[in-house]
Amino acid sequence: MADKPGSYPDSAKAGRLIRFHGGDKGGQWRAQESRTVTGLGLAPVTFLQIDESPPPERCHWTLSAFVSNLRYTTADEREALLERQEGLGRPESHCAVLIPIRKSSDWWSMAQDERRAIYERSNHTPIGLAYLPAIARQLHHCRDLGEPFDFLTWFEFAESETDRFRALLAELRSTEEWTYVERECEIWLTKNIP
Amino acid sequence: MADKPGSYPDSAKAGRLIRFHGGDKGGQWRAQESRTVTGLGLAPVTFLQIDESPPPERCHWTLSAFVSNLRYTTADEREALLERQEGLGRPESHCAVLIPIRKSSDWWSMAQDERRAIYERSNHTPIGLAYLPAIARQLHHCRDLGEPFDFLTWFEFAESETDRFRALLAELRSTEEWTYVERECEIWLTKNIP
Repeated sequence: MADKPGSYPDSAKAGRLIRFHGGDKGGQWRAQESRTVTGLGLAPVTFLQIDESPPPERCHWTLSAFVSNLRYTTADEREALLERQEGLGRPESHCAVLIPIRKSSDWWSMAQDERRAIYERSNHTPIGLAYLPAIARQLHHCRDLGEPFDFLTWFEFAESETDRFRALLAELRSTEEWTYVERECEIWLTKNIP
Repeated sequence: MADKPGSYPDSAKAGRLIRFHGGDKGGQWRAQESRTVTGLGLAPVTFLQIDESPPPERCHWTLSAFVSNLRYTTADEREALLERQEGLGRPESHCAVLIPIRKSSDWWSMAQDERRAIYERSNHTPIGLAYLPAIARQLHHCRDLGEPFDFLTWFEFAESETDRFRALLAELRSTEEWTYVERECEIWLTKNIP
């Protein structure tokens, strides 16, 4: 039920494009604030709709992406994550933040072991793990689609966890990995309950 | 010049879809034989056209994919490959083979280190390296697009290297990695010189 307030499509999986539409008309999520962290911003919007459809009416932008296989996570890391994480769509998760990111060509021209080494030195997995299960997240890839961003990360949490979410962002952004981020935005949302 | 006999689009890079159209009308390549190695086959065709366009007239199938960043290759492996490999489009490369492959869900559900370990035990890079520069290749990804295959590999070589190319295929197919391949076809081509 993609149209349920505060929902995320059940159908998201490899081989299915998922689309985030930012507009002035209803969606499952109501936008509270748009922030530009690095590089070019995105037009501010009032609502966010998430589905597999082409852009709806009165849409300012549509970002398309896909859920994919694990690119850096090891089996041990996955086990640790699965042990602690909870799914999207928890009733108390009234807040969501969509964070589109684009990394530099220096990042992408590195071989797999070079990128993994930076990911590891940056404590990417341990940082995320420390905020589980409070901060749930889903990564989407879009660089290979020719989109303006490389990743769209979707975060969900209870309103009481907002400060912890800000701390998570601050930790990630202080890492070596983030020196390769050349564009980053935040779209803060709450469930669009009529 | 995508329409030059025996050519491959110059524009192929991350974020650009490249399309392989199999049909009964002209393309840069003339099909000599279609073989089904594992699983479902593909309709036999007479010509292959490669470009970024929607399917042309009299097209039996179109396979879309993208060139992406390295997924398993380490910096050392990349250096060894770059030292030996030559590009696509060599004048003597009259032969090409398109090999679409689909791997099983068991493969895709593994973490990055588990897949890399199998790739390594299977000598994936050393096997390819041993056939350079004679057999040039370009990997394309398509699983994330919801395509019927996960990869399309494009090989080019001189006619005199045909037996060596068959030996390369036999080596790869005898590996542990190939036990995860559940669909594989071969489309053998030669430059379509009018």
